[in-house]
Amino acid sequence: MSDNKHALPDVLDGLDKNTEAALARLIEILKIPSISTDPAHNGDCARAADWCAATLTDIGFEASVRPTNGQPMVVGHYRAESVGAAPHVLFYGHYDVQPADPLEEWDSPPFEPRMEEEGTNGKIIVGRGASDDKGQFMTFLEACRAWKNIHGALPVSVSVLLEGEEESGSPSLGPFLDANAEELKADLALVCDTGQWDATSPAITTMLRGLAHAEIIITGPSRDLHSGMYGGPVQNAIRVLTSILGDLQDAEGRVKIPGFYDGIIDPTPEQLAQWATLGVDEKTYLEAIGLEHKAGEQDRSLLEQLWSRPTAEINGIIGGYTGPGSKTVIPSKALSKLTFRLVPGQDPDKIINGFKKFVSERLPDDCSVEYLESGGSPAVGFDVTAPAFTCASEALEEEWGKAPVLMGCGGSIPIVESFQSELGMESLLVGFALDDDRIHAPNEKYNLNSFRKGARSWARILQKLAAL
Amino acid sequence: MSDNKHALPDVLDGLDKNTEAALARLIEILKIPSISTDPAHNGDCARAADWCAATLTDIGFEASVRPTNGQPMVVGHYRAESVGAAPHVLFYGHYDVQPADPLEEWDSPPFEPRMEEEGTNGKIIVGRGASDDKGQFMTFLEACRAWKNIHGALPVSVSVLLEGEEESGSPSLGPFLDANAEELKADLALVCDTGQWDATSPAITTMLRGLAHAEIIITGPSRDLHSGMYGGPVQNAIRVLTSILGDLQDAEGRVKIPGFYDGIIDPTPEQLAQWATLGVDEKTYLEAIGLEHKAGEQDRSLLEQLWSRPTAEINGIIGGYTGPGSKTVIPSKALSKLTFRLVPGQDPDKIINGFKKFVSERLPDDCSVEYLESGGSPAVGFDVTAPAFTCASEALEEEWGKAPVLMGCGGSIPIVESFQSELGMESLLVGFALDDDRIHAPNEKYNLNSFRKGARSWARILQKLAAL
Repeated sequence: MSDNKHALPDVLDGLDKNTEAALARLIEILKIPSISTDPAHNGDCARAADWCAATLTDIGFEASVRPTNGQPMVVGHYRAESVGAAPHVLFYGHYDVQPADPLEEWDSPPFEPRMEEEGTNGKIIVGRGASDDKGQFMTFLEACRAWKNIHGALPVSVSVLLEGEEESGSPSLGPFLDANAEELKADLALVCDTGQWDATSPAITTMLRGLAHAEIIITGPSRDLHSGMYGGPVQNAIRVLTSILGDLQDAEGRVKIPGFYDGIIDPTPEQLAQWATLGVDEKTYLEAIGLEHKAGEQDRSLLEQLWSRPTAEINGIIGGYTGPGSKTVIPSKALSKLTFRLVPGQDPDKIINGFKKFVSERLPDDCSVEYLESGGSPAVGFDVTAPAFTCASEALEEEWGKAPVLMGCGGSIPIVESFQSELGMESLLVGFALDDDRIHAPNEKYNLNSFRKGARSWARILQKLAAL
Repeated sequence: MSDNKHALPDVLDGLDKNTEAALARLIEILKIPSISTDPAHNGDCARAADWCAATLTDIGFEASVRPTNGQPMVVGHYRAESVGAAPHVLFYGHYDVQPADPLEEWDSPPFEPRMEEEGTNGKIIVGRGASDDKGQFMTFLEACRAWKNIHGALPVSVSVLLEGEEESGSPSLGPFLDANAEELKADLALVCDTGQWDATSPAITTMLRGLAHAEIIITGPSRDLHSGMYGGPVQNAIRVLTSILGDLQDAEGRVKIPGFYDGIIDPTPEQLAQWATLGVDEKTYLEAIGLEHKAGEQDRSLLEQLWSRPTAEINGIIGGYTGPGSKTVIPSKALSKLTFRLVPGQDPDKIINGFKKFVSERLPDDCSVEYLESGGSPAVGFDVTAPAFTCASEALEEEWGKAPVLMGCGGSIPIVESFQSELGMESLLVGFALDDDRIHAPNEKYNLNSFRKGARSWARILQKLAAL
């Protein structure tokens, strides 16, 4: 099929002619309030899973709803007729959504999607899940449907995994991948849960930071003491904790944990060069959060800091008396929670061990430290010269008229790390969300242009992958 | 009267002959559960105040119960016949007690006082308030009663102020002193709410540390941020707070606040020499609280650190996420509460201003600091060569067979500072409590020896003061 010169234009024409029907389908799934964190909506999650399975079946997938200890998974398989060299892909998305609170800030009910014109965005569809992730995963299903409608077949073998717990920490995902590794393993994972660079510039997310976390308790004296009777010759747990944590970064913003930067795989000069052309305005970025000066490593650009540099953040601290007024206590204990954003080349265990060493080196002899919990997952960085990336890159350029930005991402998408570590699969992260989509917030929206061109982009990517 | 050579021996004899009656009176007041913090005991506090006023009247005072917004004050006046050069003294004590919780740890009901033999302490009386402060203020009243019984008169003019809110922060005391300054002003205040050095060594407390407090909030970004989307180039309020507070002390344990040590009046060489002879064992002191090494200024003895050196303690800290598990938040705000123990020569306002300067010097340009509350009261140091001190010192030496220890006190007794700053009165702090009296704890006790020799000590002190 891939050698049929009319194959792709016909599919794209088909998509354009059927936008109304595609939109009607999106509205159907947006109407189901599949809020995974709220047990009151368990029935809605089950309905959403059933709807997804029925939709996959309708397109020609062999689909099923699979129970878990939490919300069900939806799995579908489509086996292409010519299985030759063409890769088998596993598409991942999630049908669950964030809660809609605060309801009073929505201009219309969150589960009664409505169309609107909104300035430069043009036509938008407003509703919880419009962008995250229902609108996004539907771009892929609509691309599959168009291929099937026009040519009776998809150009490659496609499996689909739609999760229902992404917004509540994906507790069932790891066990489900373990239990169904053989069934789910493919040559490449496709994930549609990320964004574009901007409304006219497509993007492929090529790096995701990892995450390690630690929680420590420092103990000084064996009990809380009165600062009149003991103040002076005795340790204070908060003083010890602050003096350790206050030393985490040097004056240049570099993390002082031993071995923290060892083995880091830097972005390629090409990536750095592209990031430098993106015209990110530090001032605007910082002003939006009430800051004027860039913190951290001053010799790195803002995008480098966010995408390719690790961090040590203190997320929480508590100790002693924190109620109203003053209390003259010398606290016995003080606690802190920390997380470390990791980049390719860093091993979470080594980072945690380095942190423990850092603490030990600064701990007074007769104070003790306890680690309540620690752990983490490494960063993910993809080889952007791999053939699948080239396919996606070319397809996006053909659709959008410009090459995609090879973005980093400061956060983590745990599924991508799981695909890599548990199923040995690389992921291709292509998404069409925009920064102004108000995901997790009232009046979440998706541009109809994102929906239409997203489906066209996937139709193109599937064709390119078939030609590999 | 003071020139009557039999005056004192007769009074001391009278005290010894009437110990049973004195003890019966102590038991009466100990039976009243005058817990000032618990509104359920307001009636008991009123009963205790009435009992005190009646007792003062019985001894010959013109006494009254005086209402306040909280628990009542008891005021009594005795005007000596020969008013010549003899000083007029104001005795201060408090009739309220700490709550008795945990009740199950008492060997007998806390408000049913009982006598017991206890090892080297000999006979003790057990009950809430036995030492703090009912047993202690009754030593003074029994001394007055004996003088009155034997000679028909007290040797000096005496006013008595018994408070009912000492265990709940003395909220009414300041206003009451202000409103009744003329009535309460005397030449010297006598306070019986401190301890001896040990069971056989009397003591005069000659220095009390002051206290300044501050509460600060650091704000970094204008809202809590996601550490994936913002981690690296942005400030973290806890990082800023810990790096400031972690720098409060230098490696030698000295506080780095600008001007912190300016103007400090050091103890006299004689005081330091006496402290050095007291045989305090650092190891024992630290072991009891689970520590091995003395913190803070290594070039100072433990007693110097506790009595004559100022401190900067972090009493509480809170910021970011402190619930279960981990949360990848970059906190916008972090709060800390601090107190500073002050020594003579330090001005609380200057210390707080120095702290603010210390913070400002370390605050990143685009973070802000807010001071929620701050304030304090200075330390009190008495001139131990003043005549009243010599009187008390001689009297105690005659009673106990050894010179009193001129102690410092790491804590504060706010009334003493108020007497000095509001009424212009110095205080003579003589008490007979022992470290093992279990004040504020279950099975609080007072040695009958403390009660008997305490009353005898006051009888002697009153005579010496009359001779001034």
